[in-house]
Amino acid sequence: MTPEAVSPGTVRPGGRTARVRSAVLRAAGDALAEHGLAGLDLADVALRAEVGRTTVYRRWGTPVGLVADLLADMAEQSLPRTETGTLLGDLRANARLVQRTLADPRQGALFKSVIAAATCDTQAAAALHRFYEIRVSEWDPCARQAVERGELPEGTDTREVIRAVSAPLYYRLLTTAEPLDEAAADRAADAAAAAARAGAFVGPAR
Amino acid sequence: MTPEAVSPGTVRPGGRTARVRSAVLRAAGDALAEHGLAGLDLADVALRAEVGRTTVYRRWGTPVGLVADLLADMAEQSLPRTETGTLLGDLRANARLVQRTLADPRQGALFKSVIAAATCDTQAAAALHRFYEIRVSEWDPCARQAVERGELPEGTDTREVIRAVSAPLYYRLLTTAEPLDEAAADRAADAAAAAARAGAFVGPAR
Repeated sequence: MTPEAVSPGTVRPGGRTARVRSAVLRAAGDALAEHGLAGLDLADVALRAEVGRTTVYRRWGTPVGLVADLLADMAEQSLPRTETGTLLGDLRANARLVQRTLADPRQGALFKSVIAAATCDTQAAAALHRFYEIRVSEWDPCARQAVERGELPEGTDTREVIRAVSAPLYYRLLTTAEPLDEAAADRAADAAAAAARAGAFVGPAR
Repeated sequence: MTPEAVSPGTVRPGGRTARVRSAVLRAAGDALAEHGLAGLDLADVALRAEVGRTTVYRRWGTPVGLVADLLADMAEQSLPRTETGTLLGDLRANARLVQRTLADPRQGALFKSVIAAATCDTQAAAALHRFYEIRVSEWDPCARQAVERGELPEGTDTREVIRAVSAPLYYRLLTTAEPLDEAAADRAADAAAAAARAGAFVGPAR
């Protein structure tokens, strides 16, 4: 613990600079969740965060600069993977985490907004791709250990197994009005595990 | 063939009204693919389509009105499902069609734009959901026939099987910089088929 560290989850350690970043990114996330990229205004974010406008303009420059830093922060903050000892247990834990995140009104709206931002801006897209790279890397050991345990065939593209868990949940969020519930999460995990066991993710191309 | 029908694929039957709609939706699709919803301007669309501005304002009203009608037209125009006689053959044909569409520069950009539009507008979201409902209904018989043939277990949620084919391709398009190639399409189909055969889509919740 550094001397600046207060109770975890309230203010992160690192002094004034870190507190300013935390407040600004929180405000930017709120604004994005409420209005999307089109409604992300640096002066408004400064006001919400109770931070000087000049600081925000100097440090983040543009709305997309804010989105990119927010995604970097979300990657840093994302929860560590679960270890249950079985592939299905691990994938279900992963699916439930994705489902809870996307079903949360603020977080769900925020994810929709950053995905939308990435469709029309290359800097936002690069930041979004990095976020998912980091997230997949965090959970990849679940599938790698399943290969080592003999639960999955040798040569399985383990990153694709992790992506297969999230894909149906994001697809449901973006293309349907259906609820993102725990049943959907478990089904996503079960389907990914079954496909992986059957060898659908072996090798780069089949 | 109605008297107005010219060679298929050039001008659709229905006379002037249909020709105007076709030209306007083509122009709206071009504008969306190039600039996204934020760059969709009714006067610009009228100019591109060589149609009177008043016609466009009167008939479509707003940029989102154009997006909604474009999605309705895309659903009408979408290709009929393939029948190969096997589940894997049908799902691979479906996956290749989705992959070719999303990998096409104009179509891929257009789909990204309408998905982004749906994240920030409820009318656009409703139109997008309808588009995918219609598309899933078109391909659903592939999975239903597989149940009848005994290739898939009784009680399989066949619409979820069809969605499982598309989900990884959209997830790849939106969250990674990786190419959307035929190998990705085949893997999506193989994974969906394997999961379905293993019973991962049986019943509403597991």
